[in-house]
Amino acid sequence: MSNSVLVVGSVAFDDVETPFGKRVDAIGGSAVYFSVAASHFSNVRLVGVAGQDFPEEIVALLKKHSINLEGLEIAEGKTFRWGGKYYTDVNKRDTLYTDLNVFASFEPKIPKTFLQTPFVFLGNIQPALQSDVLNKIQKPKFVALDTMNLWINTTRDELMKVIRRVDLLFINDTELAELTGHNNPYSGLRKLHELGLNYIVLKKGEHGAMISNGKSLFISPAFPVLQPTDPTGAGDSFAGGFMGFLTANGGVNWRVLKKALVYGSVMGSLCVEQFSIDGLLNIQRKAIQARFDDLRKLVTL
Amino acid sequence: MSNSVLVVGSVAFDDVETPFGKRVDAIGGSAVYFSVAASHFSNVRLVGVAGQDFPEEIVALLKKHSINLEGLEIAEGKTFRWGGKYYTDVNKRDTLYTDLNVFASFEPKIPKTFLQTPFVFLGNIQPALQSDVLNKIQKPKFVALDTMNLWINTTRDELMKVIRRVDLLFINDTELAELTGHNNPYSGLRKLHELGLNYIVLKKGEHGAMISNGKSLFISPAFPVLQPTDPTGAGDSFAGGFMGFLTANGGVNWRVLKKALVYGSVMGSLCVEQFSIDGLLNIQRKAIQARFDDLRKLVTL
Repeated sequence: MSNSVLVVGSVAFDDVETPFGKRVDAIGGSAVYFSVAASHFSNVRLVGVAGQDFPEEIVALLKKHSINLEGLEIAEGKTFRWGGKYYTDVNKRDTLYTDLNVFASFEPKIPKTFLQTPFVFLGNIQPALQSDVLNKIQKPKFVALDTMNLWINTTRDELMKVIRRVDLLFINDTELAELTGHNNPYSGLRKLHELGLNYIVLKKGEHGAMISNGKSLFISPAFPVLQPTDPTGAGDSFAGGFMGFLTANGGVNWRVLKKALVYGSVMGSLCVEQFSIDGLLNIQRKAIQARFDDLRKLVTL
Repeated sequence: MSNSVLVVGSVAFDDVETPFGKRVDAIGGSAVYFSVAASHFSNVRLVGVAGQDFPEEIVALLKKHSINLEGLEIAEGKTFRWGGKYYTDVNKRDTLYTDLNVFASFEPKIPKTFLQTPFVFLGNIQPALQSDVLNKIQKPKFVALDTMNLWINTTRDELMKVIRRVDLLFINDTELAELTGHNNPYSGLRKLHELGLNYIVLKKGEHGAMISNGKSLFISPAFPVLQPTDPTGAGDSFAGGFMGFLTANGGVNWRVLKKALVYGSVMGSLCVEQFSIDGLLNIQRKAIQARFDDLRKLVTL
């Protein structure tokens, strides 16, 4: 585990209600989900902001998972808090409230020791901040970006600027349609490749995921989850598994990217099986590998 | 091509409007889509009813595709006619009208020469009629059944009776949820296996398909279709490819069923690329095989 991946994103408390239960003060945020998932594969460097209410136990827990928290700023005020409710159809959710708190004035500060991180994941924050981070990192080897409908609708120009600078975009089906204007995902992918994007990972939740390099596609089904308890963070856990594997591997090529997609699916499925990051903690590498093998068997003739 | 598959289902004229155009008097119906798709693999015996307005050219066309029409009754009156409109989101469609015509009093008549057909597909008709057909066929080797929301909601008891008698059920996600009361497809599949069903094929449209034997799952993605012109008949074409391949192969085992699922995906994709049965006609076996190989490459590391 020599290579490192840097993640910038949110650190949050989530209050989540699903048909399977309720969890208050659950640790969450894109940077946290990503970090814990990626930490099973490589060293992780987290850049984010939390409030003074952020518990020491969580800091200790994340450090134990080989997550470097030098870039976690503890700012005056409270940690970002999100409240959401999921329905029997897990694809429907309502945001009950969003208290940005210290996240409202977040300006990513990259510690000197992080400036030469080879793999970078720009989690779902304002595109202008994603660009700022990218300006600071010295010659990254591979940069991936996540986004969301909010930025597509409110800061499209900034978003398009940063998209042009990265190697890979993580996106889901509705975001892809909104970003490209194409309902057909293959037309949407083509349009993004024409902008110069090398790789696109299309996340389709329980329908799996695909990666496109503009010439070839690779598809992985989702791991069959009998009880998706809490979908929060699934996309970031997916990205964490994907980028963590890529980082550990070091070299980036099509075969490695395809395997990374399967590891992404594995970590996404582990995430949704339990509340918060519970499903991602204390997982043996052997269990991850078993799930990878099961996913491969699902598509083997 | 020695083995035969028998299909009972509808024969229809469809008036279809999609974002890509309009087609009036298009030949359709579950038995027709199934037959043409299956005819690329095996001999097909069609049981259905059409009206006196059914064109001789279509009869000649189907016969040319090694579809045995001895079981096609030409009844006094008009052929079943369906009108539908599809939207940019191809999963949404409105039925504009349904004129049952001769199909309203359809009573499947099985020609003597069809009574010993080894493979049987009970297309989407009233469950009581599906049972009648099953009563008549002498010791079929493998029977598959299709259904729809209408029968799940209006004739559930009859439907459950015939489901218990067949080897395989074709079903889509919303039908599975309605039939089992489970939103989670894996819970739904388990419930159906508990009823004694050996095999279930879950069709998920552009998200692919899976087959379950109660212990193992196999998943095939959908073939990437850049312009799904007309989704009408995709499910029946899928079933046609699946059952046609199974019939040609003769023996039924898990490996063959998995390959059949991929051939089903191939024929479904060929169907939706053009209006009516146009995409299924005049396809070379080589082109079908190329698409099968492409589908396998999509999931190959």
